Amino acid sequence: MNFTALRPPRAGSVDFVNGRTRLYGIVGHPIEQVRSPETVTFELQRRDLNAILLPIHIKPEEFSKVFPRILQIGNLDGIVVTVPYKGQALSHIHRAGPMAQLSGGVSVIGRSLDDRWVGEMFDGVGCIAALLRRGVVLTGRRVLLLGAGGAGSAIAAELARCAPGDLFIHDPETQRAADVIGKLSKAFPNSRMHAGLPSLEEIDVLVNASPVGMLDANASPLDVARLPSQLAVMDAIMDPDQTKLLRIAEESGCQTIYGREMLDSQIAAACDFMLDIRPRMAEDVVFQVQQSFQSLTQV
Amino acid sequence: MNFTALRPPRAGSVDFVNGRTRLYGIVGHPIEQVRSPETVTFELQRRDLNAILLPIHIKPEEFSKVFPRILQIGNLDGIVVTVPYKGQALSHIHRAGPMAQLSGGVSVIGRSLDDRWVGEMFDGVGCIAALLRRGVVLTGRRVLLLGAGGAGSAIAAELARCAPGDLFIHDPETQRAADVIGKLSKAFPNSRMHAGLPSLEEIDVLVNASPVGMLDANASPLDVARLPSQLAVMDAIMDPDQTKLLRIAEESGCQTIYGREMLDSQIAAACDFMLDIRPRMAEDVVFQVQQSFQSLTQV
Repeated sequence: MNFTALRPPRAGSVDFVNGRTRLYGIVGHPIEQVRSPETVTFELQRRDLNAILLPIHIKPEEFSKVFPRILQIGNLDGIVVTVPYKGQALSHIHRAGPMAQLSGGVSVIGRSLDDRWVGEMFDGVGCIAALLRRGVVLTGRRVLLLGAGGAGSAIAAELARCAPGDLFIHDPETQRAADVIGKLSKAFPNSRMHAGLPSLEEIDVLVNASPVGMLDANASPLDVARLPSQLAVMDAIMDPDQTKLLRIAEESGCQTIYGREMLDSQIAAACDFMLDIRPRMAEDVVFQVQQSFQSLTQV
Repeated sequence: MNFTALRPPRAGSVDFVNGRTRLYGIVGHPIEQVRSPETVTFELQRRDLNAILLPIHIKPEEFSKVFPRILQIGNLDGIVVTVPYKGQALSHIHRAGPMAQLSGGVSVIGRSLDDRWVGEMFDGVGCIAALLRRGVVLTGRRVLLLGAGGAGSAIAAELARCAPGDLFIHDPETQRAADVIGKLSKAFPNSRMHAGLPSLEEIDVLVNASPVGMLDANASPLDVARLPSQLAVMDAIMDPDQTKLLRIAEESGCQTIYGREMLDSQIAAACDFMLDIRPRMAEDVVFQVQQSFQSLTQV
């Protein structure tokens, strides 16, 4: 009698995760709205990797205890850091890149060959890439950046790297703009940076990195009804797609660059960093983190 | 001039993970060989849930620090526990089910409505389900279980629940068999349980829960060349598929039940437990964990 023919069929299985899958995560609070899980996982799989990026929700009061332990998960290789943890995460890693040190936060961290966690800030990269892809020249031009908070600091550092003729940084909290300029002046000693709001007639490129206009289609960081038509205007805000600032810019005949245009470049940069962190370790783009981190996170 | 037509296409995305995905995990060391990620995720998705089960590798020297912090991830709802953490995990949860208390370990834990972690041991369920599905009667029969370790304890508890006529438990470490019987006798006071190896002629059902034969097709927990043909023989070992014990059993004309037949029932039981833990909380199948856990984990 052949009993073995009665064996049940094997259980079904999916093809995108198994015991050898390498883990990546995005930490934030709240977490439901993030887009990295579906987009970065797509990019990881497009590169033929058995890897997945997951939403990881950590509550603010538990972050300092939970985050360092998550970094000890043996098959976790990288983390995208989002609001409100970009500054805090910096204090839990071993080495930070130059943009992280300038901006005082990290947007991506990765595990290095020697099992250290290395981080960098890419919030500015997507903005600059979107501008350059749309033909906006930054080098030698007069650029105005609105907002000197977390995103603003990161974008300011990337803008400074493009050697604009003049970089104006305006923030209602004037000390924040002065602090960012003070820090960037050391890294870019030949640059001409100014805190404050110049006449818009003198400006070629306007970038909004302030939160004014986010989730509010009737708020604008500039109290104007029209803008000079020579301006290229970018808004780093992604929701709503068209902010009041961009609507005024389009009505004024300006070139407009949308916040969501930053996404592609940021996803590619995050993947490159998390995956290429091992060779990068040999280069001097990653600096050893000193005790100075505590001061950096004050930006 | 319409610049907006130049916007790049949206980044690609996958459809099996996003910011609202609920996380499940399997913790173990090593982790590469586990099958729960692909099979349990299939089962979760078959139930129309936005959920995924991931491999989570924790090193033994870090388990006691990392595991409790992983339980604080806000969107993590359940964990399958595998070797070597079934006993240790029991000491990190708030409540344990009866089989967990009897066996001294958990195979699955889930987050309850009141944000407590509740665990149960299902290693025995798959074994009993496989036997019953193949028509093997346990109630009133004479059953011999080989092995009183972690898996053996769990299977012993489930076998005892089926009210066999006699349950023999044999382990080369004789005290382990005596300890399991001592504990089960309190839970099943009317059962007839015996430590030691009876004559196989007196036995109806033989279950191997010892590791002898695992990854070694030439090792058998019984030093015999033939078995009485009336025996139904189950081997809980999954690799190799056909152990030496099962080969001898088939050559002897016995009914044979394979280790992998346990999988389907265990997957369904794990999902049921992790997903239904909230209603279960109201039932008395889940006991409040007392300080007695420390003694239970000695089994």
